[in-house]
Amino acid sequence: MKIELSGVFAPITTPFIDEALASDQLKKNMQVYKQTALSGYFALGSNGENKSLDDSEKMKILEVIVQEKEKKQLVMAGGGYESTIRTIAFCRKLADAGADLVSVLTPCYFKKAMTDEALIGYYTDVADALSIPVVVYNAPGFTGMEISPKALGTISQHPNIIGMKDSSPYKYSRYLEVCDTNFQLLSGSISALFPALTLGAVGGVAALANAFPRMCCQLFEKFKTGDLTEARRLHFMLSRMNNAVSGRFGVAGLKFALDVAGLYGGIPRRPLLPLKKEEIKLIREDIDASNILDLESNGI
Amino acid sequence: MKIELSGVFAPITTPFIDEALASDQLKKNMQVYKQTALSGYFALGSNGENKSLDDSEKMKILEVIVQEKEKKQLVMAGGGYESTIRTIAFCRKLADAGADLVSVLTPCYFKKAMTDEALIGYYTDVADALSIPVVVYNAPGFTGMEISPKALGTISQHPNIIGMKDSSPYKYSRYLEVCDTNFQLLSGSISALFPALTLGAVGGVAALANAFPRMCCQLFEKFKTGDLTEARRLHFMLSRMNNAVSGRFGVAGLKFALDVAGLYGGIPRRPLLPLKKEEIKLIREDIDASNILDLESNGI
Amino acid sequence: MKIELSGVFAPITTPFIDEALASDQLKKNMQVYKQTALSGYFALGSNGENKSLDDSEKMKILEVIVQEKEKKQLVMAGGGYESTIRTIAFCRKLADAGADLVSVLTPCYFKKAMTDEALIGYYTDVADALSIPVVVYNAPGFTGMEISPKALGTISQHPNIIGMKDSSPYKYSRYLEVCDTNFQLLSGSISALFPALTLGAVGGVAALANAFPRMCCQLFEKFKTGDLTEARRLHFMLSRMNNAVSGRFGVAGLKFALDVAGLYGGIPRRPLLPLKKEEIKLIREDIDASNILDLESNGI
Amino acid sequence: MKIELSGVFAPITTPFIDEALASDQLKKNMQVYKQTALSGYFALGSNGENKSLDDSEKMKILEVIVQEKEKKQLVMAGGGYESTIRTIAFCRKLADAGADLVSVLTPCYFKKAMTDEALIGYYTDVADALSIPVVVYNAPGFTGMEISPKALGTISQHPNIIGMKDSSPYKYSRYLEVCDTNFQLLSGSISALFPALTLGAVGGVAALANAFPRMCCQLFEKFKTGDLTEARRLHFMLSRMNNAVSGRFGVAGLKFALDVAGLYGGIPRRPLLPLKKEEIKLIREDIDASNILDLESNGI
Repeated sequence: MKIELSGVFAPITTPFIDEALASDQLKKNMQVYKQTALSGYFALGSNGENKSLDDSEKMKILEVIVQEKEKKQLVMAGGGYESTIRTIAFCRKLADAGADLVSVLTPCYFKKAMTDEALIGYYTDVADALSIPVVVYNAPGFTGMEISPKALGTISQHPNIIGMKDSSPYKYSRYLEVCDTNFQLLSGSISALFPALTLGAVGGVAALANAFPRMCCQLFEKFKTGDLTEARRLHFMLSRMNNAVSGRFGVAGLKFALDVAGLYGGIPRRPLLPLKKEEIKLIREDIDASNILDLESNGI
Repeated sequence: MKIELSGVFAPITTPFIDEALASDQLKKNMQVYKQTALSGYFALGSNGENKSLDDSEKMKILEVIVQEKEKKQLVMAGGGYESTIRTIAFCRKLADAGADLVSVLTPCYFKKAMTDEALIGYYTDVADALSIPVVVYNAPGFTGMEISPKALGTISQHPNIIGMKDSSPYKYSRYLEVCDTNFQLLSGSISALFPALTLGAVGGVAALANAFPRMCCQLFEKFKTGDLTEARRLHFMLSRMNNAVSGRFGVAGLKFALDVAGLYGGIPRRPLLPLKKEEIKLIREDIDASNILDLESNGI
Repeated sequence: MKIELSGVFAPITTPFIDEALASDQLKKNMQVYKQTALSGYFALGSNGENKSLDDSEKMKILEVIVQEKEKKQLVMAGGGYESTIRTIAFCRKLADAGADLVSVLTPCYFKKAMTDEALIGYYTDVADALSIPVVVYNAPGFTGMEISPKALGTISQHPNIIGMKDSSPYKYSRYLEVCDTNFQLLSGSISALFPALTLGAVGGVAALANAFPRMCCQLFEKFKTGDLTEARRLHFMLSRMNNAVSGRFGVAGLKFALDVAGLYGGIPRRPLLPLKKEEIKLIREDIDASNILDLESNGI
Repeated sequence: MKIELSGVFAPITTPFIDEALASDQLKKNMQVYKQTALSGYFALGSNGENKSLDDSEKMKILEVIVQEKEKKQLVMAGGGYESTIRTIAFCRKLADAGADLVSVLTPCYFKKAMTDEALIGYYTDVADALSIPVVVYNAPGFTGMEISPKALGTISQHPNIIGMKDSSPYKYSRYLEVCDTNFQLLSGSISALFPALTLGAVGGVAALANAFPRMCCQLFEKFKTGDLTEARRLHFMLSRMNNAVSGRFGVAGLKFALDVAGLYGGIPRRPLLPLKKEEIKLIREDIDASNILDLESNGI
């Protein structure tokens, strides 16, 4: 049975206290998320500070998310490493721990060597070796490279590769052009969700859904029910908020927005720096001006 | 006592057989290297496929290099991770295992957040926590970002940060401008070694020294003894060879050059692809045309 | 009275015979275009090889387009130079020759100096000096820089700057976010037209409309009448064609498509090269496979 | 007779008063320059605001420089346009007006189309058509593209293309590798002059030579007479000054340095902005700290 990715997924942030993983805070956040319309979770993604964690921390985080989620919600877990052998080994652990599917970032250290042929080989090897489905993770802002539409066209035909989380700012149209119609594209941010949906994407992973899950789900819902005017209004409102929070201040900004929203955000692991006072002031002003806290708590 | 980095260092490649670490092949290569004028080794660097290895493999490789090297040769080991906490933990293991110093790559996943302040904080935290010296590793071709001269100027004043391996293609002059005079700059490739030396660099890490260590050392020697004409001639010869091997074909090309030179190269870990027949032909032609094998075996 | 930019504009190509301007061929092309639903023309744009022409050639081209167009069709003319003084002087000539409005490319030679302040000053100076409205032209693929949303937010408030032709691949949402609601955004290619329209753009300038004006207008028409399914189908079909023609082969490819479509394309001015035989074969195959010629000639 | 490019060339700035060309100021500046060891002038270059001038202004500037220079000093004039036909036409005018040679910038508007084949065709066509020699002008900071070493290798064999002004920050070594030994490479800034000379460049075009011609010539002189230690000391001093002036503030910064040095600088043409008060303060501090004014006026 193919997994259906429709809707909004939250790329869960990782709570730390004094740089140590704070599982209890993660559990508390999950109690909020499970009551929303979120389709599921992206565990161990970029906003989860994947690269700042060791493997035992990663497994602990996945365990909490799998335990605490609503039954019908899906868990997609980040399993990419730089070599095929390491990626397969780690993704198998994720599958054993209850992930429904894995998101596999494009290897990027040897970026000049990541030709279409190398990437097709990589994703084929990984998908062949796993018992759970694979979602390609394209994130040029972090990796400094991107998968070509041509390579994706080939990769999308693999029976165990069911979709792509696309965090490139705009290539959804080019990617959708070349993929099998049953290949499921997820936009990688709330800012791209609405335009991607109008072109055929099935949903999105939205950092902002960590802080404002109901509003993000509302945008998706309005689109699905054909209320394009309201969906577009929400698009611009959430896109501005996303720029003000994640766009300007990355993980530290996002975590602060969780704090403001009554969830546990905390600060990121070093070398990421916590927000400065004046940055906090800027985000607070933007959040207040948007009225998003009221909208979110009132179920919109 | 400050460590003196003068001369040529080889960034040791990692031998694999069927994707498994082949320690015996590494030992054999070391028997050749220890008889040369190499000042030391860069263990677990980019050309060592650092990012494709797990921690136990990394420790095994370091162990072999430390055991097999000449006593006077230095071992610089690659210890960078994306978070401060992980980098410190791993660098301490490297120190315990006998590394003389560590090379710490700039964190790069959250590249937009790697401001001067974040990088200064990172290197300060790491250098404060370690008992062995730190060398900054700047490699924009792999990381998609670079350290600013201004940040380096500050970092270079830390008593436990003794130098930088600079694999940017050209910034040596800008970096040398801002550093303490006792800060030791190593060029990151044979192609930059000669011009960097003329400006005050102390030596270099040269991928090509894996295959042709004597020739690379010869370039350094000629420069030190004031024979600039011969040093320049070697510069152009080795730079062309470097472009033909590493520039065009990366780790796979470099490993093939080791095979041609009678060392053990083998193929890189996937997703890196082995050379194709026509690529092998191109490298062979360039190696043959250069007469470098004869020059190398005859001690030049 | 404000000018209404709604719909599709063709960025008219410049016919040459033996590198000399061929006005008669341009007149013949115009006879075809004036019978379509094109809202107007972008004279002297990038696809018109603006930078390859001297001023007298530019004026001759504008003269032909103004003379031959349908009365209700608008003529937007490219008037940007690198200095404010030159841009104003030339735009005044365009106004005198009958252009309805001017498109002014961001100066880009001193790209590092083109700060928000410099660009705001530039567009303000130019718009203040002209009797006809100004459209900002943002084309990072050609200029190697782009206007920031913040600068555009300020510029969009100038009463004589009525819109922007945005040839960035994707920033329409960010630009629309910051502009006055009556600022008119035109997408800069057929590939961005549909997603930009869903977000509030008023129309687009489409290179492909030089060869297939009816199909491009049809996409706009379907969107305006609410047939999103058909508009999206046309989007993917025309976007693929645009990639096959302009995306791969630039002006030379576009001009060849005109030849195939029964218009006069010819070859671009050197150093742009004419298509090679194998490139011609590739375009022909894509055009034949798409059935676009039949669709275009049958009024769709 | 081949022209010998050895030494330092000043890329003459263009004096304006109220945005109008101020020929008298240019004449006065020339009276200073002609008394120095400058090998010649680069008229109508980037720092001369070439792209901000119309053709009649360009011809006037060239006329003044040709008239006022010392007889033995060379005049290289910037003649590049975006199309072959325009470049040839304008370069012929430059030749007629007394330019000894022309510098021809890579066309860059259609950057994706500027393949090796297109650039080789362009430079061949231009050089074939002219009676005076051509120097390739490679300036990626302005053009957003660069000529490949491979293309330059071919171009360098043309009998009427005698050298390249290379304003890429570092590719001199790669370019020198592929060129005929009698091809003359000029570094494009004072910062690259010393390292380029050590590799075989013949001289350089240095923006800073507009303000401090004697010091720039001194660096060259020290290198030629084998005093590498002093040449290197001057390299770092002038390179820092270049970063402080042109690197930070471009043409406006350079022009202000002329004013400080007792020449006529003035302000650049809009949209380039004049320096702000705090920027002026920064440059003044750096100039004062360097003692360069005393050194320059005392003939060093």
